[in-house]
Amino acid sequence: MDNFIFCSPTEFVFGRDTESQVGALAARHGAGKVLIVYGGGSAVRSGLIGRVEDSLRGAGLQWVTLSGVKPNPTDDKVYEGVALAVREAVTFILAVGGGSVIDTAKAIALGAVYPGDFWDFYSGKEQPMAALPVGVVLTIPAAGSEGSGNSVITRVATHQKLGARYPALLRPRFAVMNPELTFTLPWEQTAYGIVDMLCHIFERYFSPTVGTQLVDAYSEAIMRDVLDQALTLRMQPDSYDARADVMWASTLAHNGLCGVGKVEDWATHKLEHEVSALYDVPHGAGLACLAPAWMEVASRRNPDKIWRFAINVMSVDPTGHTTDEVIAEGIAMLRDFYHDLGLSTSLTELIGTKPDIDALVDSLKKNFGETLGSYVALSPADWREIYNLAL
Amino acid sequence: MDNFIFCSPTEFVFGRDTESQVGALAARHGAGKVLIVYGGGSAVRSGLIGRVEDSLRGAGLQWVTLSGVKPNPTDDKVYEGVALAVREAVTFILAVGGGSVIDTAKAIALGAVYPGDFWDFYSGKEQPMAALPVGVVLTIPAAGSEGSGNSVITRVATHQKLGARYPALLRPRFAVMNPELTFTLPWEQTAYGIVDMLCHIFERYFSPTVGTQLVDAYSEAIMRDVLDQALTLRMQPDSYDARADVMWASTLAHNGLCGVGKVEDWATHKLEHEVSALYDVPHGAGLACLAPAWMEVASRRNPDKIWRFAINVMSVDPTGHTTDEVIAEGIAMLRDFYHDLGLSTSLTELIGTKPDIDALVDSLKKNFGETLGSYVALSPADWREIYNLAL
Repeated sequence: MDNFIFCSPTEFVFGRDTESQVGALAARHGAGKVLIVYGGGSAVRSGLIGRVEDSLRGAGLQWVTLSGVKPNPTDDKVYEGVALAVREAVTFILAVGGGSVIDTAKAIALGAVYPGDFWDFYSGKEQPMAALPVGVVLTIPAAGSEGSGNSVITRVATHQKLGARYPALLRPRFAVMNPELTFTLPWEQTAYGIVDMLCHIFERYFSPTVGTQLVDAYSEAIMRDVLDQALTLRMQPDSYDARADVMWASTLAHNGLCGVGKVEDWATHKLEHEVSALYDVPHGAGLACLAPAWMEVASRRNPDKIWRFAINVMSVDPTGHTTDEVIAEGIAMLRDFYHDLGLSTSLTELIGTKPDIDALVDSLKKNFGETLGSYVALSPADWREIYNLAL
Repeated sequence: MDNFIFCSPTEFVFGRDTESQVGALAARHGAGKVLIVYGGGSAVRSGLIGRVEDSLRGAGLQWVTLSGVKPNPTDDKVYEGVALAVREAVTFILAVGGGSVIDTAKAIALGAVYPGDFWDFYSGKEQPMAALPVGVVLTIPAAGSEGSGNSVITRVATHQKLGARYPALLRPRFAVMNPELTFTLPWEQTAYGIVDMLCHIFERYFSPTVGTQLVDAYSEAIMRDVLDQALTLRMQPDSYDARADVMWASTLAHNGLCGVGKVEDWATHKLEHEVSALYDVPHGAGLACLAPAWMEVASRRNPDKIWRFAINVMSVDPTGHTTDEVIAEGIAMLRDFYHDLGLSTSLTELIGTKPDIDALVDSLKKNFGETLGSYVALSPADWREIYNLAL
């Protein structure tokens, strides 16, 4: 096990009706004037935004709103939010939504107290010194952004989808998590979220670091539970306990707990971000195509953890089977699981046309150089093969 | 699953040589003058206190020291520390040790900024409004106090061993955790620690709350790993990875992660605290006698989770066996595990004489009234039976 620092200071307020506490929470975390950031009209129509506003009013807070954040959030909405935050002198950013809304809120929090361009912190040109505090009312369990110090934004002009990671500044002060808010999610959003949270654990579980028995064991337990509860939700979308497990798993998958003491990988996420940036497909949908393809390529050079995954997570019985057979069966079962969720594992089917692999590979080179990942170091030829296996 | 709040803001700095960072950490958390609290001479002889002082010096901090904290820490040492902290105007308490040292440091942190008697916060007479910040260099993984907001102190005059729980004030700001510091622990301290951390998970796992599949799954994974690594350490006390797993498990067992969404139990701990308070036996040694006895009594009225524990944690094969047989086998295997660690599961053997059960039961009544626990509500007759089964 490697040395590590683990710190998850976000106050997770979890359960039924917890959104009624958001005003008191924001006030306790120093909010004066709040910028509420959200996505589409469903948050208004469901009454959630109204309940949040009631709670802020009850706590004596003022607020302004920014709506219209879209999946694969873009820099134009961030610039709009930064301008609004500066003009209105807001002191707290409240994200009401899923990963795209939270990531946009974090970018605004950085940009609102920086005289330059917030994108400097995503391109790596500058390191931020400050950010406004961020709070969250989570409506889509998926990205884990409610407990992470990360944010991913797409720059429209250049089709660049890049992440920023500043835990000390960007971890939300609190995250209100009511599983009931997710009962009425369109099924595909639930499914994409499940794919994403599983992949957040994959990227840490598939690590070159040895001596990680404890973190591997609880990571496997979380993955098994998500697989199981996902199938429950396919039949019973209003199962509170299944919704609660999936929501809490989305946080544990990305608050650092599953990555302690390990070198992480993140190649699959980077391969996918190129696809989403170029074709604007949902991140989870892209991951469902790419994660099994990554496993096929990675397992040839480093089979151990993928073999363990097949046995301990996908429940493949290894008796009488070679390592290769066990791995192939595990990957096939993962693809079957995605199909059971109603998802495609073909990029061509997802995008509606064969993707431009040359363009994806060129963009990856521009953003990350010549290698991706740590479990195995993947070359551009490997990226190309993974994209081809995912066609 | 019940509603919950989870917040674990402690910065865990984990791994080799991390004690060299303690000065920088204390300075970053606002320390000016530090009170170092520790136990016996081994921390000095090993050079640890010297390295900690070097690190504080390097960060430009001043300090005073308080040594001599004993297992089952007592109020007299707290009073000594409070007087010293006030006299020296310290602004930060640094615990270098295990649970007894950390719990003493927390009590001093409360008492140093309170004009009355710190015991008011343990007896429940008053609620604290403030405390000095506390940091930790952990040397014995066991109590989980490095990540918890709890402290347990014994009042010598009355033989009362009572806990205080004030997470917002008492959670350490940081905990430096170097598994190498535990290589040379006397074996029984390692063993007691393993018993204690397992029991911290038991007290949450054995809950009346239903719909807790995810938290149960990762709790079981942590327990299985501790059982496994404990046996590794019995043979190889300097296995870094096993020491690291046990150390990290001690934190996860008690930072709240394993209790989210559940009513907790804590009857076994309360039954044991009476024994330690009256006979001054190590807490972990008492728990090894009482936890299996608690399971015997509790399983008669509520078998479900103890049956699951037998199968999922103790790896009992249920095929062809009744529920009662599975439970009995699971409890027998737990006692065997404690014996494999070299521990007794008999209170009479531990204390050297048959304990005064009437006195234990009377003291429990005085401290807690007529019932203990939530998985099953235990009456004084039940406590008596548990003590008798543990003789």
